[in-house]
Amino acid sequence: MPVLDPERVDLRVAVLAPISWRVPPRHYGPWELFASLLTEGLVARGVDVTLFATGDSLTAARLSSVVPRSWSEDDEVDPKVAECLHIASVFERADEFDLIHNGFDFLPLTYSALVKTPVLTTIHGFSSPRIVPVYAKYDGRATYVSISDSDRHPDLTYLATIHHGIDTDQFALHVEPGEYLLFFGRIHPDKGTAEAIRVAARSGRRLVIAGIIQDQAYFDAAVAPHLGAAVEYIGPVGPEQRSELLGGAAALLHLIEFEEPFGLSVVEAMAAGTPVIATPRGSIPERIDEGVTGFLVDTPEQAARTLPKALDLDRSAIRSRAVARFGKDRMVDDYLRAYRSVLDGS
Amino acid sequence: MPVLDPERVDLRVAVLAPISWRVPPRHYGPWELFASLLTEGLVARGVDVTLFATGDSLTAARLSSVVPRSWSEDDEVDPKVAECLHIASVFERADEFDLIHNGFDFLPLTYSALVKTPVLTTIHGFSSPRIVPVYAKYDGRATYVSISDSDRHPDLTYLATIHHGIDTDQFALHVEPGEYLLFFGRIHPDKGTAEAIRVAARSGRRLVIAGIIQDQAYFDAAVAPHLGAAVEYIGPVGPEQRSELLGGAAALLHLIEFEEPFGLSVVEAMAAGTPVIATPRGSIPERIDEGVTGFLVDTPEQAARTLPKALDLDRSAIRSRAVARFGKDRMVDDYLRAYRSVLDGS
Repeated sequence: MPVLDPERVDLRVAVLAPISWRVPPRHYGPWELFASLLTEGLVARGVDVTLFATGDSLTAARLSSVVPRSWSEDDEVDPKVAECLHIASVFERADEFDLIHNGFDFLPLTYSALVKTPVLTTIHGFSSPRIVPVYAKYDGRATYVSISDSDRHPDLTYLATIHHGIDTDQFALHVEPGEYLLFFGRIHPDKGTAEAIRVAARSGRRLVIAGIIQDQAYFDAAVAPHLGAAVEYIGPVGPEQRSELLGGAAALLHLIEFEEPFGLSVVEAMAAGTPVIATPRGSIPERIDEGVTGFLVDTPEQAARTLPKALDLDRSAIRSRAVARFGKDRMVDDYLRAYRSVLDGS
Repeated sequence: MPVLDPERVDLRVAVLAPISWRVPPRHYGPWELFASLLTEGLVARGVDVTLFATGDSLTAARLSSVVPRSWSEDDEVDPKVAECLHIASVFERADEFDLIHNGFDFLPLTYSALVKTPVLTTIHGFSSPRIVPVYAKYDGRATYVSISDSDRHPDLTYLATIHHGIDTDQFALHVEPGEYLLFFGRIHPDKGTAEAIRVAARSGRRLVIAGIIQDQAYFDAAVAPHLGAAVEYIGPVGPEQRSELLGGAAALLHLIEFEEPFGLSVVEAMAAGTPVIATPRGSIPERIDEGVTGFLVDTPEQAARTLPKALDLDRSAIRSRAVARFGKDRMVDDYLRAYRSVLDGS
């Protein structure tokens, strides 16, 4: 599916990544991971990409940097200083690009009206309602892309929702999974760790809990008392073991209690062929195809009742759907379409 | 002394003030005070000034605001959001101005290369060596003014040093002062409170100490044990009482132990006719005319020995010199000259 016109092969795009972490991030860094997957995908399509990121970033694109390392990893650097110089560096070269793709939150918008080059911004979320005024001010002039329909702000105009893609090659299809159920994420009431324990108890299956402890009191009260042969806590899990752990699970329990903008583990589990049972909060209803990749439930009891149906799902079909809907290629296609729309309209 | 050419009377200047406080500040806010004195002085000369400041600011200039109140006085406002919108608002209107005068630290510089209008920046000081890279990057393109020669950074190029001016009308000449010596400033080892106490003890005069306690341990150890009839601590003093307190002193003791960029109290004391005895640190040697407005000393003992000479100085001449060198009119003249220089060179 060649989305890119042959005559547009000389498209020059600047991707502005955050500099909290390297691109791609060594460990944590979801926005930097997004910038990396997008940049490498664009380069693979023949787009002329300049990635604005830390100097130690790894990319097949041209790299432009004002700091050698991320401010999280360099005490010499003042984050505010590094960020404004980083942002200025792309806008000062605006004439060299057909489009600037801002993956760096709100601050770059305040430079955008000073250049002629169109700016497309992926809004990764609103850390506080107090940052909305910046998006509101540049609404109409800048172009916004939401990462899920559920994450849209009612006062803003969006060109499109483009769900994140992942590198599905990193997740192997597990046709014959293990018998355990999996909780994967930070240990926090928002994420429904206690609810997952209840589902496991009702269904008579073992539960594996993986993730950092974000709320120690919650862990002590709602998780620790249940630990034993039936409930195992294995701590955080690095990139290398994710495929094995997610793919080895009979099902992923994602009984969240908050409006999650985009939880990567749901998509990663599906890429490994593992069905997901989740509460329909945040972007979950947009991402789970009921009866194909998982089921939506409201309570742990309903989750336990639904489990047999989930275990019957075709794991090969789950992976296929995940690759089609949440592979990085689909994301790159969508962004190329969005760029086209901006450039045709400008 | 008409510094402004008749043909330049249509000069259009944007003054970008901080929004930490109102302009002018109700209490504390030295950068906002500077912006106010400069703006009102420029307006009085017929310059077409637009002041970018909080919405509750008071000015004879045109006022442009993105926030109704300062972020220090409004919990609804995110400082980072308010500041970037505030800064963008002046650069987005750059074409309307012949010159933008940046009194807002380093962040505005990162927008300056995106507009054609020249930007003159008053560098109020370096809060950290980590902010110097921003000034270094725009050195040569932006124009820098230092507030004292001593505050210059060796790596940067400056158009001029322009000492701050004050509204000398707020300080009445006191020809017949009281007998007390005065310490005026925050109670901190940097400011030499203990040294002032030693001078007073040696000279047999009463000492009045005014200012906030910034270092409580220092106050407890070095100040509190001396309090009594000879040493009085009166706390911080508001704008209304400054003239009376400074002018009523026989001399101001300013035995600082750090490189002070610009202490206002020294100039205010002189405006009230009061001689200053100070250590030659920071900008002090640039501001005290030895034998006219005060004396420079290295130790409290030397200060005590020098005191009789200081008390013999002509208080009327002290004020005259202060008005000439540190009145707001002189500051406005100097900035008009600097604007001229930038515009003739651009």
